[in-house]
Amino acid sequence: MYRHLTETRIRYGETDQMGYVYYGNYALFFEIGRVECMRSLGISYKWLEQQGVHMPVLELHCKYLHPARYDDLIRIETRITDSPTSRIRFEYRIMNETGTLLTEGATTLAFLSAETGKPLRAPQALRNVLAPFFP
Amino acid sequence: MYRHLTETRIRYGETDQMGYVYYGNYALFFEIGRVECMRSLGISYKWLEQQGVHMPVLELHCKYLHPARYDDLIRIETRITDSPTSRIRFEYRIMNETGTLLTEGATTLAFLSAETGKPLRAPQALRNVLAPFFP
Amino acid sequence: MYRHLTETRIRYGETDQMGYVYYGNYALFFEIGRVECMRSLGISYKWLEQQGVHMPVLELHCKYLHPARYDDLIRIETRITDSPTSRIRFEYRIMNETGTLLTEGATTLAFLSAETGKPLRAPQALRNVLAPFFP
Amino acid sequence: MYRHLTETRIRYGETDQMGYVYYGNYALFFEIGRVECMRSLGISYKWLEQQGVHMPVLELHCKYLHPARYDDLIRIETRITDSPTSRIRFEYRIMNETGTLLTEGATTLAFLSAETGKPLRAPQALRNVLAPFFP
Repeated sequence: MYRHLTETRIRYGETDQMGYVYYGNYALFFEIGRVECMRSLGISYKWLEQQGVHMPVLELHCKYLHPARYDDLIRIETRITDSPTSRIRFEYRIMNETGTLLTEGATTLAFLSAETGKPLRAPQALRNVLAPFFP
Repeated sequence: MYRHLTETRIRYGETDQMGYVYYGNYALFFEIGRVECMRSLGISYKWLEQQGVHMPVLELHCKYLHPARYDDLIRIETRITDSPTSRIRFEYRIMNETGTLLTEGATTLAFLSAETGKPLRAPQALRNVLAPFFP
Repeated sequence: MYRHLTETRIRYGETDQMGYVYYGNYALFFEIGRVECMRSLGISYKWLEQQGVHMPVLELHCKYLHPARYDDLIRIETRITDSPTSRIRFEYRIMNETGTLLTEGATTLAFLSAETGKPLRAPQALRNVLAPFFP
Repeated sequence: MYRHLTETRIRYGETDQMGYVYYGNYALFFEIGRVECMRSLGISYKWLEQQGVHMPVLELHCKYLHPARYDDLIRIETRITDSPTSRIRFEYRIMNETGTLLTEGATTLAFLSAETGKPLRAPQALRNVLAPFFP
């Protein structure tokens, strides 16, 4: 298992008139979580795209326990719990500054060739850096 | 079961650099689906809020089968498959103009008092209009 | 001068906790305005891109007079007031259902070669359909 | 004059299919700029709202010189060039990591009573912390 923690601050434009973060915006926070998780492993998603690898999302799940609010400095915990194959799954937990768990979620992404659109095996560079965590 | 169909056109700002609709934006399309589904039953969500009822999303699930693209006129099919209690579940299917199923999803929403934040039973007006579909 | 009118409904996710539409979202409404304005002339922006023409925005101006609110069916009036050169300017007025002017704005866009990034003259097809309006 | 610098990283969901940041998303970056600018002066916008002050945007202007791209760590420079009255103007310059100026812009915001919607004079706390910069 590999686990990473990052944070971001809620923007006014991310709230809605209920006074909380709009439910669709958590997809952006999950994106931040997985991108920074990969960066912490030495793999930038931008670089992966430049190598011709696209990672479209296949599935998203999100459970809203408590609302995030404007100006909250949320903590995004991202976990990779399984060795990637032609897919990779990320699990997320979002907490506020007082440690309250606000949201739990998960995404499954594919590895595709940007050129052909065909599925790929997880890039060697990613498998290498993750190998120590899945002995 | 109650089923409703509406459509919306993909905006440029809803795409990302992969050339498809960003995965988080489907939450907006699901919102359109359920709001128009309720409107077709004679219940406007705006009116519900004015009656003091909030409907925060408790859970979101989304499965991405094929990408929606810029300028696609997507069709959003929304279904209510169970009589609402203190919660209501909407199921969605998004198709493009050629009928290809792009996305499947579901959301569960609560009914809360805007004043106290406490759970409410589904509003009587909504239960009345849905009653014929759940005999 | 060429003038076109279209409409769109305000989504919940487009509001913010002030209870109005977030100021940045008007850029999306202006996009709808100019895209539908061009479509009404027989030119789809999607088709222009397929011909290798990109139209990045060079300048945006927006004046907020009254707020748009959730569920408002706003009317977007788009005007082309000058014959396009290597640039095209669109002017916008957004009104609510009661005819109140909510927002005024304008954007200037360039025509660029998608391949080289170099400026282009306005595509012939667009100049042809606009010619009758700028005698 | 008061000047403040902050930074944020471009999210994938902020790009569009042209491969750059969507033009409407700069409004979010300007929001980050002015909020962090005020925070650096000891005034949180969240706190202002809790004091009953709303700050809707009256006018937005944005000039796009070069595109911001996915994963860019952009620098947002925010300037207050005049002492606030019943309005406050912020000027922005957005640069990428190599110092290239990408975007220039400005917003004018009002101070309104959240309760009555009536214009207010700039809050005393804000005028106090800005006073040394406008002698």
